[in-house]
Amino acid sequence: MGQGKINVGVVGGSGYTGGELLRLLVSHPGVELQAITSRAYAGDLVGERFPNLRGWIGIRFSEPDLERLAKCDLVFFATPNGIAMEMAGELLAAGVRVIDLAADYRLKDAATWEQWYGVPHASPELLEMAVYGLPELNRESIRQARLVANPGCYPTAVTLGFLPLIRAGCVEMESLLADAKSGVSGAGRKVETGFLYSEVADSFRAYGVSGHRHYPEICQTLSQVAVGQQVQLVFVPHLVPMIRGIHATLYARLCQVDTDVQTLFETSYRNEPFVDVLPFGSHPDTRSVRGSNMCRIALHRPGNREQLVVLSVIDNLVKGASGQAVQNMNIMFDLEETTGLYGAPLLP
Amino acid sequence: MGQGKINVGVVGGSGYTGGELLRLLVSHPGVELQAITSRAYAGDLVGERFPNLRGWIGIRFSEPDLERLAKCDLVFFATPNGIAMEMAGELLAAGVRVIDLAADYRLKDAATWEQWYGVPHASPELLEMAVYGLPELNRESIRQARLVANPGCYPTAVTLGFLPLIRAGCVEMESLLADAKSGVSGAGRKVETGFLYSEVADSFRAYGVSGHRHYPEICQTLSQVAVGQQVQLVFVPHLVPMIRGIHATLYARLCQVDTDVQTLFETSYRNEPFVDVLPFGSHPDTRSVRGSNMCRIALHRPGNREQLVVLSVIDNLVKGASGQAVQNMNIMFDLEETTGLYGAPLLP
Amino acid sequence: MGQGKINVGVVGGSGYTGGELLRLLVSHPGVELQAITSRAYAGDLVGERFPNLRGWIGIRFSEPDLERLAKCDLVFFATPNGIAMEMAGELLAAGVRVIDLAADYRLKDAATWEQWYGVPHASPELLEMAVYGLPELNRESIRQARLVANPGCYPTAVTLGFLPLIRAGCVEMESLLADAKSGVSGAGRKVETGFLYSEVADSFRAYGVSGHRHYPEICQTLSQVAVGQQVQLVFVPHLVPMIRGIHATLYARLCQVDTDVQTLFETSYRNEPFVDVLPFGSHPDTRSVRGSNMCRIALHRPGNREQLVVLSVIDNLVKGASGQAVQNMNIMFDLEETTGLYGAPLLP
Amino acid sequence: MGQGKINVGVVGGSGYTGGELLRLLVSHPGVELQAITSRAYAGDLVGERFPNLRGWIGIRFSEPDLERLAKCDLVFFATPNGIAMEMAGELLAAGVRVIDLAADYRLKDAATWEQWYGVPHASPELLEMAVYGLPELNRESIRQARLVANPGCYPTAVTLGFLPLIRAGCVEMESLLADAKSGVSGAGRKVETGFLYSEVADSFRAYGVSGHRHYPEICQTLSQVAVGQQVQLVFVPHLVPMIRGIHATLYARLCQVDTDVQTLFETSYRNEPFVDVLPFGSHPDTRSVRGSNMCRIALHRPGNREQLVVLSVIDNLVKGASGQAVQNMNIMFDLEETTGLYGAPLLP
Repeated sequence: MGQGKINVGVVGGSGYTGGELLRLLVSHPGVELQAITSRAYAGDLVGERFPNLRGWIGIRFSEPDLERLAKCDLVFFATPNGIAMEMAGELLAAGVRVIDLAADYRLKDAATWEQWYGVPHASPELLEMAVYGLPELNRESIRQARLVANPGCYPTAVTLGFLPLIRAGCVEMESLLADAKSGVSGAGRKVETGFLYSEVADSFRAYGVSGHRHYPEICQTLSQVAVGQQVQLVFVPHLVPMIRGIHATLYARLCQVDTDVQTLFETSYRNEPFVDVLPFGSHPDTRSVRGSNMCRIALHRPGNREQLVVLSVIDNLVKGASGQAVQNMNIMFDLEETTGLYGAPLLP
Repeated sequence: MGQGKINVGVVGGSGYTGGELLRLLVSHPGVELQAITSRAYAGDLVGERFPNLRGWIGIRFSEPDLERLAKCDLVFFATPNGIAMEMAGELLAAGVRVIDLAADYRLKDAATWEQWYGVPHASPELLEMAVYGLPELNRESIRQARLVANPGCYPTAVTLGFLPLIRAGCVEMESLLADAKSGVSGAGRKVETGFLYSEVADSFRAYGVSGHRHYPEICQTLSQVAVGQQVQLVFVPHLVPMIRGIHATLYARLCQVDTDVQTLFETSYRNEPFVDVLPFGSHPDTRSVRGSNMCRIALHRPGNREQLVVLSVIDNLVKGASGQAVQNMNIMFDLEETTGLYGAPLLP
Repeated sequence: MGQGKINVGVVGGSGYTGGELLRLLVSHPGVELQAITSRAYAGDLVGERFPNLRGWIGIRFSEPDLERLAKCDLVFFATPNGIAMEMAGELLAAGVRVIDLAADYRLKDAATWEQWYGVPHASPELLEMAVYGLPELNRESIRQARLVANPGCYPTAVTLGFLPLIRAGCVEMESLLADAKSGVSGAGRKVETGFLYSEVADSFRAYGVSGHRHYPEICQTLSQVAVGQQVQLVFVPHLVPMIRGIHATLYARLCQVDTDVQTLFETSYRNEPFVDVLPFGSHPDTRSVRGSNMCRIALHRPGNREQLVVLSVIDNLVKGASGQAVQNMNIMFDLEETTGLYGAPLLP
Repeated sequence: MGQGKINVGVVGGSGYTGGELLRLLVSHPGVELQAITSRAYAGDLVGERFPNLRGWIGIRFSEPDLERLAKCDLVFFATPNGIAMEMAGELLAAGVRVIDLAADYRLKDAATWEQWYGVPHASPELLEMAVYGLPELNRESIRQARLVANPGCYPTAVTLGFLPLIRAGCVEMESLLADAKSGVSGAGRKVETGFLYSEVADSFRAYGVSGHRHYPEICQTLSQVAVGQQVQLVFVPHLVPMIRGIHATLYARLCQVDTDVQTLFETSYRNEPFVDVLPFGSHPDTRSVRGSNMCRIALHRPGNREQLVVLSVIDNLVKGASGQAVQNMNIMFDLEETTGLYGAPLLP
């Protein structure tokens, strides 16, 4: 095992969040990769499934083996929903800390979880100890956490865009609306007709308008912040013909027309290494954060009336998944929060 | 000149709406193309500028020559804003009918026009006679019109999505919000860094959030329909990395939760050849109308509350520009409204 | 059944070539669609699988029913390889004419077919009567054919680019090389990881370099033309991140440096409605034929030496599949060859 | 000035190679950026022109000022062709070392340069001292070089693919053919209609078939290696609808059918940190090197005859430009050759 390094296991390393996690971890100076598991690809070189990582990573996918994982300091789950909730308990009992990139521990209420995910929860007793891994909201709890529920991609972009407003109590709660757009990698590497190149390219559509699993997650977080109020925003996701990126266009009405929202946001995020508040009236593009853990936010007041528009962009695979997981790891293991996340976004 | 055919001139035929107009006109059985003008490309074969049209169209671009255009029955302006307003008067005086695909005659108020377009209007006296060429709203006026102001692409998609609701008076007027997304061809063929492939591909952004020229056009139309009320919606356009297509995601709150909006839309558009109301809860993609004059609309009621979401898609170059212009021509010249617009959309 | 129209059945209408065939047939004035079969989608409206065709086609997919198909004048197979060879015999026996868009009847030698397609041929006795449906090569045989083997997409682009040269015997046969590039729809609508949007977009790669099924098909055709010589070209296909289009870059060495190849090509294709020889030194782009049955060809002589470069572009789903099938149908049923294939390509 | 760091100036930092160079340099531990010049954007924050670099780089573009640049240890020219040749002389005289990412010093013969670049060369006296900066060919010369001519993107991909074959003398020199494909960023950030999104997306074409400026550069290098032979390959470039990436498909005929080319390549590149020879028969995709300095190469022998196919992929902005420039800097200043170039490619 690595001396003075965090011994890390990755369960379910063959999807997009798994691959992105590996891309970040191979450049992370404080990490020693101990195991990368994949039932489907056990025995294969990681570089066969992720041709970009050939030369950067020499080990092979292995079967998920609890005994081996139990020797790690930290295990990431980059699995589909419903896997971590079966395995996390034993790992935690063995003293391993866990970060789940899937949705298993994001909702505090097991009944709500079961309603949206369609199966009974296998370890509801762990929901209470799980910390929702949004550093900008829960940094201190993350530091102590044994089990971190890494936020969803839409919830990250939407929550960071609404957070200062709700904390300040300066918007009408029933006016919140999130029109969100995601690149196709947000759907994962699963094989469905609807995500074939020829189905998605050169086209645009909404989906899940009647209900998306990220909706209760966003409502839960915003309601926690808006103490005493149940937030019920309108949330409509769309599919963009691009690989990475989320652009959340957020709408809210200010309670008072003279609120200085630009200063509010700049103050709120002054010390955040991964939230960049742009000059008022900017239009961030998703490529400005491609491959990086940055969230960029810009504010608009069309017509200078109460209506506020917040534009929030992230890379769904980084700040919306694997980068945020590394950020959480850094916090949990008392490393500089930006370690391994220095790389500038890729443009063009 | 063509016997029994409409003798047509196209001014400014070298841009995307010009090219699309030509693509439609070469297959139109009732049209004889007399002149296609372009200052920049005069003398060139049309097929050099539009390699798709090689073999379909043999004539060359010519200088815009009023004498020659005055012999046409109909002249289309596919020019940048500000050209038609200089030339339309003389053509109308010569008995030629005019369809302007640019914005010169869309706004009824010259002062508003000058505010948004930044120059004085050259023929404000024609604004009153100009008919706003949205057949679903103004079919009878179009039939008699001498001068048609062809609607903008965003206004077409947004207006068709809101029209039945506002006519029925069943939504709260201050709740209207249009989050609109457009393919890059909506920016025209003008050469700007921001529309280079490497700037636009694999990325997504909003633009013009503080104010877009299509905003007053939408407000004007909706206010006309909402008799006695001044409509001030929220309108935010975005740029999608695709060539063609507009997807308008429209939000409104119903005055009463039990309104049957699906029936309302189906009834409203029952006889419209180019508006297709999809089954409740559908998610139209822009490619489902690619290359065609169809507008497809679907309705959603997330949470079954007052909140209504309307999804409206068009091809910005067809129903959002040149196809609608041909539809207007058909109406003006008493042809079957669908003549030359039969082609099924191209998918994939 | 349609009076005076061709009663047409389409077997396997749910893939891309099936959908494109339907798009063309719904606008074809001489055709009456009698049945569109699909085992997987039987009972569904065609417009659910092909949202572009909603409103253009009202019938539903049905189970493939030989009795019903036997009442047609013509049956198209737009099925995967290996289906037509099971069903064509009975249809032919019932007097139905057949056009197979798959590969079942393209190779004359059953052993070669079995070597490349990996299964025994189910009706080798029909191979001899099958006519290879490349009108520019076999127009007269197609006219009489009962069974047409519609060419593959690569073979169409490559063969049309080499044909005049080989007929004229003016190139060195061992110098032929075809570096071909295809849009992703060429892989069909089958669900494989490798054709997911996020796998294919913003990237480029070769595939099948060691051997592709279109290779023996190209060799067979070129060898037939090069009487007495066995043609063994080099053929390397590539996958382009675009939906439609094939671009074949063809290389050959002229036997004599003073051959006037431009005149040779122009003369060869003078009367062909769907082959367009561009001015010498042109660079056709695939979008110049998007959605149309046209093949555009341009010639280059870098350094003015013996080396010749031929650029040949088609839309793989039209001239490379369904459009060519309609062209063959027109020839077989004595219609104007261009009927239903008038539409100009879609650009941009 | 930076203590113990290389003081670096970048001239012409507003294009794609300039931006990519900055992206790499801001993460380079041994570099201190002293000046980034741009006539067009002097005074602007670098982060306005490159929104990805906001937060990573705080300085502003400045006017190109020879006095200031003369204080640097190294100046990169990321300018259009024809700028470095005007300024390099003075900088060299002041003891500054120079790496030109443009073409000014790539060709050894001034007359050839003038023929292909259309203007007289401003400093032909420097051509002899300029070292062609392909480390795999000229590492030792680069170490001592005062002036490095950074290779073009196509020449890098093509040369690395042919190099072992020509060194070994095992291919027929008149059989060399390079069919190359490039992403659109290869055209730079210059504003031309032909590179607009709507002109390039969803399409594919060849260009410059009759002659491309990278042709004499490739010939010069290969001829140097093929001592005593003048190499005249066939070179045809194509434009791919993707942002980054070059895929060179290279063809050659082996002199003897039993040559073990796989071992030849593996041996040749065994110690090269940025050349990865894949298992025989692989198909590298350009995304497998996206954002990285790696070149990946795979070999094929279709039909197991003399014909050899070499597939070579690079990121045109990294190994094809700015990454190679950083690699050259590392060599020139005795740093570990991979310093600042560790980042794994970005996939998907």
